[in-house]
Parts: sequence; structure tokens; C-alpha cells
Amino acid sequence: MAMTHPLLVRGVTGLPEFRAGDVLAEAIVAHAELVDGDVVVVTSKAVSKCEGRVVDIDETDPVARRQLIESEAVRVLRRRGELVITETRHGFVLANSGIDFSNVEAGKACLLPLDPDRSARRIRDGIRGLAGHEVAVIITDTFGRPWRVGVTDVAIGIAGLAGVVDLRGTPDALGRTLLATEVCVADEIAAAAELVMTKSASVPVAIVRGVDETFFRESSVREIVRPHRDDLFR
Amino acid sequence: MAMTHPLLVRGVTGLPEFRAGDVLAEAIVAHAELVDGDVVVVTSKAVSKCEGRVVDIDETDPVARRQLIESEAVRVLRRRGELVITETRHGFVLANSGIDFSNVEAGKACLLPLDPDRSARRIRDGIRGLAGHEVAVIITDTFGRPWRVGVTDVAIGIAGLAGVVDLRGTPDALGRTLLATEVCVADEIAAAAELVMTKSASVPVAIVRGVDETFFRESSVREIVRPHRDDLFR
Repeated sequence: MAMTHPLLVRGVTGLPEFRAGDVLAEAIVAHAELVDGDVVVVTSKAVSKCEGRVVDIDETDPVARRQLIESEAVRVLRRRGELVITETRHGFVLANSGIDFSNVEAGKACLLPLDPDRSARRIRDGIRGLAGHEVAVIITDTFGRPWRVGVTDVAIGIAGLAGVVDLRGTPDALGRTLLATEVCVADEIAAAAELVMTKSASVPVAIVRGVDETFFRESSVREIVRPHRDDLFR
Repeated sequence: MAMTHPLLVRGVTGLPEFRAGDVLAEAIVAHAELVDGDVVVVTSKAVSKCEGRVVDIDETDPVARRQLIESEAVRVLRRRGELVITETRHGFVLANSGIDFSNVEAGKACLLPLDPDRSARRIRDGIRGLAGHEVAVIITDTFGRPWRVGVTDVAIGIAGLAGVVDLRGTPDALGRTLLATEVCVADEIAAAAELVMTKSASVPVAIVRGVDETFFRESSVREIVRPHRDDLFR
């Protein structure tokens, strides 16, 4: 019976409904028990609400909806019925430019944060300033995938944590050198966190403890955005 | 300070190098501490080795490599240099038909299991028979994504666990009804497990404890494979 060091994933409950001007780091420090080396995972919707990225929308007007989606896109990749797949100015490819029409008041829509890396850094710096803890932060959003049914949460902003860990050159179990294995650990942590953040239960923050310490470093979500030149499917 | 029930993810260490004919359930029961409701996550490579899905390949011969990749595919979607994106007979879209040329002996390549759902059921039934534990099983493989850098682990076979959980009709936090949120919890659990299964450390099995009990049901990975008619990018 031998097991690795465990990874522990917990949702933070009891957080308020966030409003423009709220300081996420304060709410997190007040509600979550943190230690150095924790990864704090926050949904983009909580960030957007605090940052005032909520706009009025007449949901019964398909033209208004479409215009809002296009105004948040640099490119429309595909359309089918109500589904629009776009590329955002951040370089993310997802449905509806990441605009969320649920979990906001009727007549409102929630846009993605303008600079999710900056949002992540602000939370990280805030937690350090308020409580002295050295943590990493991931801002997550919920993306579909072209060939697989169902959405999963991925990282759209990071602070203090690698997006991609390059295992190139690491000897494999048989002592040979692996050629190319870049693992997107930020997305894997985002996915793990989603499992304790059910949409109906108001859990917009999760704490992931036990993440490999070698993953902690300065970074940007830009390292996860595939450059157009490498893209085979756009 | 209020946190949700935790999710606990641990890798199983000390497992042997698997060979054709080895019984995975026996090895897992011998090395892992299990309880009812655990999700047992096993890499496809461990499964393929036990099932004898290892073939000879002259790695210095690009034609042989290409022929092997195509023999495991029903369709080639894209080619660029050495990279080939194919659709397998299971319906998975990934690089090189999922064939793994690393972590096997020189001159050998590891193919995906023929029927990963069946492999998962066999492990689940084996654990029940040997130790009496009611667990779910996920067989994982490592997939790239078209617009994001880095690979993540996803489910290619499942037993006793939902692939996709449909939150359609669940009231959101503001009491309105969500329109469509199908979450691929099997892929999120696979991603969480990968974080404790580093490629260089021979950890082909992880145990995920604390998964929402409503996710446990009879299932097939077919529910995660997007039908061609819904595909916008093939």
C-alpha cells in the first residue's frame, strides 16, 4: 500500500453574490483556510462581476445577442443555429465569445474579464498583502471541445503557476528520453476544481492543495494559447 | 471558514511494469487502499500492455510508422510534418491514432485498447470480485487540443461513472433554469488524476475519492464522443 502525496481539492462555500467593486482577495481570505503553495481557483464569472464586466441585454432580441457576441470577438469561426464559435481578443476559441447569459440577473450578461492574467495577479497580490500567503491563482472558464461532448473548465488567466509544463527531455520509466510531452497543468487543475464547484451551489472559488512545487513560477495564459501558425483547425 | 467535502486524488506507487496477461485488478487491489465510491483511474498504456496491444515497429522507418498510424485510424483529418491527426475506430480524434512510441521497449509501440469500456468494466468487476469494493473505473489517454497548447488526460473508457452530467434544468444560484450545461465529469476526473501521475515516475493508476455520488451510474465513453452530425471542425 503505497500512495503518492495527495492532491486535495475543496470548494469555498458561504461567499457572497459578488458585485462591481468587490475585492475578491478579501472575500477569499475571509472564507478560505489557506496555506503557502495552495492554488486558488476562481471562476471568470466571479471575477467579471467584481470588475463590472456585466452589461444590459434584451435576451428576447436575437440581433442584440448576436451583436454582443460579435463585439467581444476578433473572428467568428463557425455558426450553426444559435451556436456561434468565436475567437476572443485573448485568443481563446469558444462558444459565444465566453459571454454568459445564465447566473446573472435577468436582462444582464456577463463578459469575460478584459485581462484575466491581471485579474489573477491582483487576487494573488491581494492574498499576499492581506494574509501573507504565497499562493498561485487560476481564473477559469467553461469551454466546449470540438470532438467531445460536454464542457470542462480551463484556465483563462494565471498567476504564479505554469500554464504548460514541458517534460521534454525527462527520462521515461524505461530510462529513454521523452521526445515531446508538454502537459497543460493549469487546465488540469481548473478541471479538478470544477468537480467541487457545481453551478447550482454558488461555489465560485476552490482551493487545490498539494500541487507539485516545481509548477510554481511566473507565467501568463498566453503560453496556453496556440499560435495561429500552429493551428490546423481554425 | 466553510469548505465543501474534499476531493482527494492520490497516485498508486510500487506497481510493476505490466506485461501481456497481467491482471490489472489484482495489482490495483494489492497496491491501493480502496473504499466504496472511489474512482480508479488507469492509463491506457497500462491497459494496453496487459492486453498485449504492443507491436513491433522499426522507429527509424517513417513509412512503417505512418502505416501503423493509418492502420489504427478510420480517417486522417490533418497532416503536418510528422504530426498526423486521425479519428480512431472508437471515434476519438487525436494525434497518431493514440499510438505511443515512448514508455515501451525500443522497437515497440503501444496501441490503444480495442474496447476501453470493456477494459474498464473488467477492472471494475475484478476489484469487486477480489476485494468487494464498489468502485468506478476510468481508462485515460493523453490528448492534444486544437487551440490550446499542451496535452491533458481524458477518459477513453468508463465503467460505473457518468461520462457527461447533464445540468439542464437545474436551477442556477439565482433560481432561474439553466438552458444547457453538460459537464464532462469523466474528463475532469481524468485531468485531476494526471496531476499525480507524472510520466517519469511509473504511476499508471490513481484513486480519486469524494466524487459526487450522483455521478455513479452505468455508462459508456460513447456518450463523450461527439456525433459527426454535431461536429463543426472535422
